[in-house]
Order: sequence, then structure tokens, then C-alpha cells
Amino acid sequence: MDPIKTVIVGATGVVGQQFVLALNDHPWFTISCLAASKRSSGKIYSEALKDDETGSLRWFCDEPPPESVLDIVVEDVDSLNFSDVDLVFSAVGSKVARPLEGMIAEKKPVISTARSYRYNKDVPILVPGVNFGHAKLIDVQRKTRGWKGFVVTQPNCTAIGLVYSLKPLLDCFGLERVLMTSLQAISGAGRSPGVIALDILENVIPYIPGEEEAVETETLKILGRYQFGTIAPAEFHVSSTCTRVNVRDGHTESVFVSTSKPCTVEEVTEVMRAFDGGLGDLDLPSAPKHLIVVHDDPYRPQPRLDRNVDGGMATVVGRIRNDPALSNGVKYVLLSHNTKMGAAKGAVLVAEYLVKEEYL
Amino acid sequence: MDPIKTVIVGATGVVGQQFVLALNDHPWFTISCLAASKRSSGKIYSEALKDDETGSLRWFCDEPPPESVLDIVVEDVDSLNFSDVDLVFSAVGSKVARPLEGMIAEKKPVISTARSYRYNKDVPILVPGVNFGHAKLIDVQRKTRGWKGFVVTQPNCTAIGLVYSLKPLLDCFGLERVLMTSLQAISGAGRSPGVIALDILENVIPYIPGEEEAVETETLKILGRYQFGTIAPAEFHVSSTCTRVNVRDGHTESVFVSTSKPCTVEEVTEVMRAFDGGLGDLDLPSAPKHLIVVHDDPYRPQPRLDRNVDGGMATVVGRIRNDPALSNGVKYVLLSHNTKMGAAKGAVLVAEYLVKEEYL
Amino acid sequence: MDPIKTVIVGATGVVGQQFVLALNDHPWFTISCLAASKRSSGKIYSEALKDDETGSLRWFCDEPPPESVLDIVVEDVDSLNFSDVDLVFSAVGSKVARPLEGMIAEKKPVISTARSYRYNKDVPILVPGVNFGHAKLIDVQRKTRGWKGFVVTQPNCTAIGLVYSLKPLLDCFGLERVLMTSLQAISGAGRSPGVIALDILENVIPYIPGEEEAVETETLKILGRYQFGTIAPAEFHVSSTCTRVNVRDGHTESVFVSTSKPCTVEEVTEVMRAFDGGLGDLDLPSAPKHLIVVHDDPYRPQPRLDRNVDGGMATVVGRIRNDPALSNGVKYVLLSHNTKMGAAKGAVLVAEYLVKEEYL
Amino acid sequence: MDPIKTVIVGATGVVGQQFVLALNDHPWFTISCLAASKRSSGKIYSEALKDDETGSLRWFCDEPPPESVLDIVVEDVDSLNFSDVDLVFSAVGSKVARPLEGMIAEKKPVISTARSYRYNKDVPILVPGVNFGHAKLIDVQRKTRGWKGFVVTQPNCTAIGLVYSLKPLLDCFGLERVLMTSLQAISGAGRSPGVIALDILENVIPYIPGEEEAVETETLKILGRYQFGTIAPAEFHVSSTCTRVNVRDGHTESVFVSTSKPCTVEEVTEVMRAFDGGLGDLDLPSAPKHLIVVHDDPYRPQPRLDRNVDGGMATVVGRIRNDPALSNGVKYVLLSHNTKMGAAKGAVLVAEYLVKEEYL
Repeated sequence: MDPIKTVIVGATGVVGQQFVLALNDHPWFTISCLAASKRSSGKIYSEALKDDETGSLRWFCDEPPPESVLDIVVEDVDSLNFSDVDLVFSAVGSKVARPLEGMIAEKKPVISTARSYRYNKDVPILVPGVNFGHAKLIDVQRKTRGWKGFVVTQPNCTAIGLVYSLKPLLDCFGLERVLMTSLQAISGAGRSPGVIALDILENVIPYIPGEEEAVETETLKILGRYQFGTIAPAEFHVSSTCTRVNVRDGHTESVFVSTSKPCTVEEVTEVMRAFDGGLGDLDLPSAPKHLIVVHDDPYRPQPRLDRNVDGGMATVVGRIRNDPALSNGVKYVLLSHNTKMGAAKGAVLVAEYLVKEEYL
Repeated sequence: MDPIKTVIVGATGVVGQQFVLALNDHPWFTISCLAASKRSSGKIYSEALKDDETGSLRWFCDEPPPESVLDIVVEDVDSLNFSDVDLVFSAVGSKVARPLEGMIAEKKPVISTARSYRYNKDVPILVPGVNFGHAKLIDVQRKTRGWKGFVVTQPNCTAIGLVYSLKPLLDCFGLERVLMTSLQAISGAGRSPGVIALDILENVIPYIPGEEEAVETETLKILGRYQFGTIAPAEFHVSSTCTRVNVRDGHTESVFVSTSKPCTVEEVTEVMRAFDGGLGDLDLPSAPKHLIVVHDDPYRPQPRLDRNVDGGMATVVGRIRNDPALSNGVKYVLLSHNTKMGAAKGAVLVAEYLVKEEYL
Repeated sequence: MDPIKTVIVGATGVVGQQFVLALNDHPWFTISCLAASKRSSGKIYSEALKDDETGSLRWFCDEPPPESVLDIVVEDVDSLNFSDVDLVFSAVGSKVARPLEGMIAEKKPVISTARSYRYNKDVPILVPGVNFGHAKLIDVQRKTRGWKGFVVTQPNCTAIGLVYSLKPLLDCFGLERVLMTSLQAISGAGRSPGVIALDILENVIPYIPGEEEAVETETLKILGRYQFGTIAPAEFHVSSTCTRVNVRDGHTESVFVSTSKPCTVEEVTEVMRAFDGGLGDLDLPSAPKHLIVVHDDPYRPQPRLDRNVDGGMATVVGRIRNDPALSNGVKYVLLSHNTKMGAAKGAVLVAEYLVKEEYL
Repeated sequence: MDPIKTVIVGATGVVGQQFVLALNDHPWFTISCLAASKRSSGKIYSEALKDDETGSLRWFCDEPPPESVLDIVVEDVDSLNFSDVDLVFSAVGSKVARPLEGMIAEKKPVISTARSYRYNKDVPILVPGVNFGHAKLIDVQRKTRGWKGFVVTQPNCTAIGLVYSLKPLLDCFGLERVLMTSLQAISGAGRSPGVIALDILENVIPYIPGEEEAVETETLKILGRYQFGTIAPAEFHVSSTCTRVNVRDGHTESVFVSTSKPCTVEEVTEVMRAFDGGLGDLDLPSAPKHLIVVHDDPYRPQPRLDRNVDGGMATVVGRIRNDPALSNGVKYVLLSHNTKMGAAKGAVLVAEYLVKEEYL
């Protein structure tokens, strides 16, 4: 097939940079344009990344920037002509995202990592292998909003690992209640300025504004059911306490679950290991070999050892035990890479699915 | 009154050093002897602390060692004559503790930070202000074991903060179930070698051997009831997941609680703030002004900011919220200083109580 | 004597907070006013410290804020009446400092931690015990600028420890060249936003803009000689490389020195230990017992163990060795507390000296 | 050519694991045997790596262990038959290395990361591209010791980066004196137990036993000249202060140099960038594209950003400036990956050279 032409809007920011890497050498997608705010437009990408004062390169990913994008001239997002574009990846902040993504969606498909549209009734939060059925909302959007394009969103980076671990439990045993404590990485807060070193060095911060509400709401929406043109949220109870720890990448979550039907540690392990959410048949380039990797070693998962399993696209689970304090109780620890599956690479996987299903 | 003569056994180790500080300039207690293994005996304390190879001082507390103890000659614990001693603080490891503390207890009172005797039916785990009634087990010990002395133990350093926060809830609203995730400091693992830097730098370790069982068992024993010469454990359910984070001192715990009777955030805040467990009347020198300090600021407690409140003797609580996923649900975050209230200073406070109650 | 009435301008910032602590319960000085920008003025201090959004207290020191200042109403620095004030401590940033401090100095004495006036010919950088003779520039200022007050400055927090360690060497052996590599703490960069956690976690940053020039220039000025109404810089060579490491407080410096006359390790140790710069006779309340503490233990100084020696007012030196690569070579490692002696507490010590010498 | 059969002795330790990775899929070498102490022998490699108590995999590299080695049965190093082996990589500790490597060298070539033989007159410390001429000592060894094999050593991991940066300066401008301060990563101390987390968290340790002597001696030997069957050390002066910082991998070094002939920053930059030490013509599989990478960005090199440049095989230099305090002074900061070029991967590159030069 012809390469699908994509634009990254917000290309100079942290998430934009991750999109650049995720799309580099992609078998299906090509970066046909990098767009950013006026401050950067007109410069080539390598110049736009430079700090004005020191000339230092403001590139924040572990892998270096691909040679092929360094000389692309960054365009002004506000005056961009989207006519020759097939798909837009949006990596802008939430405030900008609301008007911008709506405007683009009138004509073109948008996949967004921002939270602006996540809670709209006709906008899906798509998690590959978990709720692709929610893509039907795209038709609803088009009908009710008159859009030719659409907006599809990525979940909060703390919700996504939780949702992956819960999906096979929900399918096999049913869920009654979920209590989760997160130990989140600092990269989740971005860099403007994100977490200040003096605040987190040798410390834990027990509060991340808005995070718990996001996790609770999005988990139920993602695991909910499409019906009558919207999503009926899942009906179990979710409660979370979200904290920040001094880890670079990889959110750790301690989860206590009460299932509807009894289940053993072996059964939980088995259904998690077997879970592939139908992805196995789709042959998507960015899909991990296993959506969930389960460790028997009680010292795992650890962020530093496990975050890059399967390119940061797997949810890694360990310490599965029965929980004596809940009815049909199960507890475990999970790890999910917040800037890989939880951001740009996850969004690209969603795009791949939408191609397969001919939404693109 | 005459000063009470104490011995610190295991005086050169980390906990022993904390005892040295906790007893320095104490209004009631005096250090009459420092005891350690043969390797150290015969040397003065400052020499016994020195690394053989480099001559570097192996002193691990933030405060420097008091001048007054530097020249005390360390005695061999195995050949020590306890006849002129009123009280023994035991800071030895669990393996050594079992035979040693039993031997000493035949003649003298022992307060121990080791876990060897914690789970014996006739040995109390005393938490000041929470369960001093359990001191009655001392009489049981003496009767059934024929000891003139006794053994009293300190709880696991992760259990103690949890127990403080739960006690007023249990008293006022009753408890049904408790689900706790800990984010524990590296000092809790000691120094032989304790946590290896390569393992914890920029990481979380999701498992601490034996810790969860200790927390669950001890919480129920401490909050249990003395009856018929033993302790009937409390009857609610406790479940925990214990993790290690890269924090020096101060264990953070994320707690989800289901109470028997409904309670509001305001009520929980109020009963925690009001809780003094009868300590107010006793006028014990090491008692904190408040056993529980409650923050309204959602960013608290933080280990670095709050661990030293009231000399590390207070349990600091924040983020009290109702929990939507449990019946009569309450959730909060607590912080407790694992090497202050959770170790030697806590043991000294227990000793002060036993003096007041004339067990000493 | 009557208490000396001081104002802290920039009272809500990090350095201002340190001044509040340094002046709390001071035997000679009293805080008669806290001043800050319009954003804070009119509020009581405890309110001015609160984050607008979360209500969280933006207090950044280890010790809690003193009760006595919490209710002081913060005044607008631009409309402040200095008539009833004896002395102004300036903790504002450099841009604001230039016009503000000049304006205040027309009437009142100013001791500043900013760098605005440091390099003016008639402004001394005063280091207690090192160059109090430079205070004569105060008379020069008054004469040439027509000021009734004056401006006296604190050195850069990296220069101050170096200068203390060099002074006895300069006096006893002469100095030819000094090569220094610093490993600086993150608190030196302040909090707006200071060092970003993602940049320093598990990392070293090999560059701090402007720092090396400041260290080199200030070292020579401070160790220079007052003559003909100005300071003739010292005549040895200084070179530095300044790096940032993941330490909260305390700048470590690795120093290589070539002295004019040969000296042994024992002699260097002795002259450093004996150095008191005449402070011993002055009896200043904030002076450390020893300006320089020398360790024989090769593992010292360490920031976490040694930064608070003598209240953070001592320069701690270790690893004194002869250097085979320089003529009359000596090398050592030093540690200096960048937010104590290197900031507000150092400035208060300067003020105490100026009182003794009747400049105040 | 036929694959060259290698043995890794000490295969279960940290360095041994790095050898396993460095030799995996190597175009010339094949792992024909993994050897370790009796404790591990007889077990398959994946079992030998397991912690006895917890079953946790003791694998310490970032990349996972290659599938192909997991089932190899580990042999007892003491009873190993080396007859069918072409080359032995030794990753054992220094105490074991002395007798073991000598015994093996009677028959077979040994490349060792241990320091046991480094300072022997007839044993070269080989640094690829810097001093391959020293390989002539192999003939000397064979003659004087009667060995059929030989011992060749890797330098200390702190010396290697320094040596790379100095070699082009020595060749082009001559060297008079070198003063270096290192900020070394914790992985340099290994894991038995290596650096204890409590010692390095939020801290700097200013002393590493034996390190400074090693750096100074080895630098002069490596940069020395082969003559009359031994190495005449280079004749400039070297002085170092070695410190430990809280970085996982990558040693940072701040270097001050006095050259014999004057040189500009541009010249230094140019000769470093141009330096390839003849490696370009040899086409060795593990050689980096550039031995030295020079940054203009003053914020580089940083361990986290630069340690993996060219697979951890390049020395990364930045902040090149003239030094005002030394005659013909130059100063710069360098970074070298202590467990890649500074250990197993560097040793494999040496082996590749020895193959090309037909020593193997």
C-alpha cells in the first residue's frame, strides 16, 4: 500500500519527540510534516529543538533523533494546510488541544494523547486489544458533529497498565472492586518544568493533581460497553491513590482486586499470560509479542529492569497472590511504560488498528 | 529517683547506635554498659566502630556520636554480668536474639527490637498509647517461664505507623478490612549490606521478604485484646503489599480502610488528631506532643519533610478521603520514621511507660 | 544593647526563608519587617507562602518556619519606608537587586546575597575571618556615591568554601595556581524551577552557566588586598570546572594547589586546623567553633555526613595529600554548605562583624 | 575463517555476564564454554544465575541474557580442560586471577579484566588504537616464562577514558602534567556488595581505595613506549582524585592538562575528532565509529545521555577550554562507559585486534 502521510502537531515537545521516534522507519506511516507553535515554525527541526540561550539540544528521549527528520522545516500549526495529510498525531497540551483538535477533525482523523476530548460521550479512549469495539464512536462523531475526520484519544498513562491487567480478569471472573496505589515515574509530569529535583530527591510525593479522578473515570469508560451510540461505563468500583517516586520511566502499581467469581493464583496467571485481545490475528507492526508478561520471580516487576520489555509495549505483572482481606481477593503489582505504551507508541498502535479496520 | 542503669547489647550496629543516641542525656536512664560480639569487646567504643582496613568511623546516624560514650570499653555480650543492671535494650539480629534474650530475661527485663519473641503467645508487642494493657503478659511470662526479668518487643517498623493510624478508627468506627501498600525506606534493610545501590537507584523493588506477613500478623496482635493470659488478635482483615523505594528514612503507606460504621473525612481527621492513647497524662520524656499529626495539604506527608516531626516519634497522616470502592471506605497516606519511633526511640518510650507502671 | 532592626527583602523566596531562620531568636537582630513583591504584599507571611492553586505551603527549609513570623504582614518592597530600619538583608534575584539595593543603600546598610554589586570596585565581597579589612570599601562607597547606607555582598556559594581553604595556605606558603572541580548540590540552583528532576536523576551535568567565571573572579578579589580605595586582586592563577551532581545540599570541591613554598601534608593540616581568621576574639553569635574542620578519615568529607557540621558554617576538608604533578603540589577535597555559610547564615555572620566594628 | 572458540571464566559474575553479551552473535568468536567456581558448576547457566533462597535471576545487565547460553552447563574452572579452546576471557576477581590466569597462560591466551598482572613488566595493558605496539610483550612473556599462551590485560575503567583523551594530545602537542578529578559510577564497584545504597543516596564519596594509584600508574604505562622487552612509562606527571557519585554507569572525569606546545581549543577539538589510532583500517567488529566524540554543547557529556554512544565504546568529550592556570593549559570533561569499553566489550575489541595481528 502507499505510505500513509501523517503530521505530528506539537512535534518539538516531549511527546512529539516520542512520536518522531515511534514513526521513524515505520512500515506503514510516513512523517510528511512536523508542526509546532509560532516560536518554532520556519526553523528546521534540529534548530527548533535548540535552547535559545545555550544552543543546547532540547531532545529528551533515550534514542537520538533520527537523521531523516533533522532538516524538516517545522510548520506553524495555526496556518497548516491539512489537505494532503491522511492522519494527525496530536501531542499538544490539553488547553491547546481542545480547539485545535476539533478544528482539524472537521477534515482529518486525529489521534491525541491529550485529555481534552477523553471524557466526551462520542469520543473513544482506545486501548489496543481491550476495547477496539469503541471505535464505533467514530461513526457517531461524524454523524452528530458533521466531521469528515474524527478524534480518538489515548488514556492517561497510569490508567493504561491498570486496564490491561484488569481486562482478562473482567472477562474471566468479573470485577467487583479495584483498589490501586501507583508509584509513578517523573517523566509522567513532563518537562515544563515537570518535577523539580529538590522536591523528589530522596522523597515520595503523595499527590498528583487530577490523576486519581482520571484513572478512576477512564478505567470504567475503557472497560465499558458500546451501546446506543455511547459507552456505558463498566460497573465495578475503582479507587486509587497516586504517588510520585524518584524513578525516570515506568509506572508501578500495587493493585488489590475483588472479583465476582473465585479465582486461584494459577488461574489469574494463566488468563493474564493468555490474554492477547485479538491482536494476535491483526499483525500490527507496533504490537508487543505479549500484551501482559507475568513474572514468577517475586522481585519483579521493577521499573528499571522491566519497563523496556517488548519495546515498552507490554504490561509486566508480578507478585500475584490471593488477598485475604477482600472477597474473592487477588493482589498483584504491575509495571507499564508511561512514555511508550502510555503515550506515542501506544497511539501509533491505535493508528495501526484503525488502518486495519479501514477507518483510515 | 536514682538513674535506671541500662545495657545496650548489639551496641555497635545500626540500631545499637540509635539506642546510644536515644539514651544520651536521658532524664531517667543511664548507659551503664555497651555490649557487643567478641570482635568488638575489649575496645573502647570509638575504636570498636572503626573499620579495620581504613580506620573510617562506621557511625550511621545523622547526629554525631555523643562524646560521653566514645571511651566506654565495649564488653563481650556472652560473658556479661548483668547483676548490676536494671534494664537491657537488645539491638541484636534475630538469630542471636532468640537464645540471648531468653538467657538475659531469666534475670533482667529486656526490651527488644528483634522479631524473635514477637510471635510468642506470652510476649507482648508494645506500642505506646495503643496497647499498654498487653504489658500484663509480663506477669504471664514470669509465671510460666519462671523468669525474674521479661521480654517485651517492638513491632516491625512498617506495622507501627499503620497501627497508630488504625487505633482511633478501630475505637471510634470499628474496622472491617485494611489494604495497605508500603513505600519503604532503604534504612529499614539495615547495612549488612542492606539495599545495594545498583538495585534501588532509579527503581522500585516490589518485594521485601517476610515483611507482609509481619505487618499483617503484628497489626492484628497489637490491636488485639488481652484475655486469659494471652492476646486475642483483632478480628478485621489486613492485606499488604510492601515495596522498597529510594528514600533514606521514613516509610510511606497508602491505606484503604473499610470501617464498621460510616464516618466522614472530618470525623476521621478529628479522631486522629485527638488521639493520645492516654499518653498525655503519663508525662513520658520521649513521647511526642501528638501521636498523630494530620495534614490538610494534599502534598503531605512526604518522607523528607515530615519524618522528623516531633523527633521522628509522630505518625504523620494526609490525604484523608472517602473511598468509593469499599463499604464505609476511607483512604489516606501515612508516614512513620522507621528508625525513630519504629526502632530505638520507640523502645525507649516503651521503657519509660514500664517505669511509670512500675514494671521496672 | 537595643535590638538591631532588620528587614528581609525577598522574604518569601528560598534565600529569604533561610534569612528568616537565621534571624529567628538572634541575640542581636530582630526582624522588624518582611518585604516581597506586590504579589505577596498585604498577606500575612504564612498566607504569602501558600501556593495559590493547592494551598500547599511553599516552605523549602529543613527546619519549619518559626511561629513568630507566620502572622507578620508582608510589605511591598517598592513602597517600603526604611526610616525605622537599621539594616536590610537582601535575598532578591540579581535583576531586581541592582536598582533596588542601590536605592536602599542611599539611606540604609544592605547585605546582599545577589551578585549584582559583587564586581563593583567599591563594593566588598566579605568573607568572615578572611577579608574583613575589605570593609573599608564602605567608606569609599559613601564618599564617592554619597550614600548614607552601603552595599556589602556575599560571595558565590561555590567560591566561599574554596576561599576558606585557600586563605591559610596563602598566608603560610603563598599560592601559585589553583585548579578546582566542583560537584555542586541542586539547591544551589534555587527553585524557579532550579534543576529539573529528569535532568539530574542518575546523572551529572558538567556545566553551570556563569559559575566558573564567578568562582575565579571572586576568589581573587576576596583574597586580594585593599589599597588606594579599591581591591587589588590576589595574583595567583585559578581555574575551575563546575558540575552539578544529585545531592541536595553541600558543594564538594576537588582542589589541586601549587604553593609558593614547599609544604607537607602535616603542615597543611595544621595551618588549616589552626585557622580562625581573628574570629575567635570577636565572639560573634553565628561564628562556627572552627572555620575549617579537617578529617583524617579518607572517606570524608561527604555532603550528607558533613554539611551540617557547626550548623553548616564550617568548611570541612579531607584527603589532604601532596600532589606529584604540580610544583609544591597539594591536593584535597572540601565541602561547604551552600545554603548556610554560602548564603543567609553567612550574611548574618557578616552583619555581626559589621556591628562589632561599628559599621552598624 | 573458523569461529574462534572462547571460554569465559567467572561467567556468572557481573563482568562475566557482560562478556556473555559482548560475545553473543559475535562474527568471529563463539562461546564454547562457561566456567565458574564449584558453587555454580554442573548447573545450566540459567540455574547458576538464580539466587538460592528466592529463585530470583541474578542477571545485572540492561539487555536480557541471550537464549542461546541459558542451557549451557557451567563447568568448574579448576578442573577445566582447555585443550579445545582458542582464547580465554577472564572475568574473575584479582585474588583468584593471579594463580588461575598464570596457569591457563601456560597453554592458552588469556585476556583479563582483573588487575593481577597489569603491573608486571612483561604484561601489556592494551588499549585499542592507543598502544597496540605493546602487544610485543607477548613474545617476551613466552620467551621468559615459557608460556605457550599469554596474558594480556584491560586497564582500570577510570584510566581508559583518560588515556583515550590524552593520546591525541600527547601525539600532537606533548604532555607535561595532567590533573584529573573523577565522578565515578556505582557499577564500577561491582555487586559484592559494591556500593551500599545508604552510603551514596544524595551523597558523594570522595575516596575509592587504590583507584588513584591505578589511574596514575596505568596511564603512564599505557602511554609509554615499548623498548628492550619492556615498557618505559610516559614521562609527564599525572595526579588524580577519584570520587563516587550516584550514577549507574559512566565515569565522568574533569581533566586539566598542561601540554608541551601551545594549542588552541580548535586544535584540541580537531585532533580529538580526527583520532582513530589506526583502527579505521583494521575493520574490527567491536570498534566504535569514532574513538572520541567531541561535543560543542557545553551541557555535554552527561552520563545518562552519552554513555551509550557507539555502543558504549566511544570516549565522549566536551567543554574543551583553555586553562588560565597552567602553562599551555587545556581543560575538558570526558565520559567513558565503565562496563562497556572499560570492561568486557573493550576486552573483546582487544581480542579482535590480536586476531588481526595473528597473535591468535
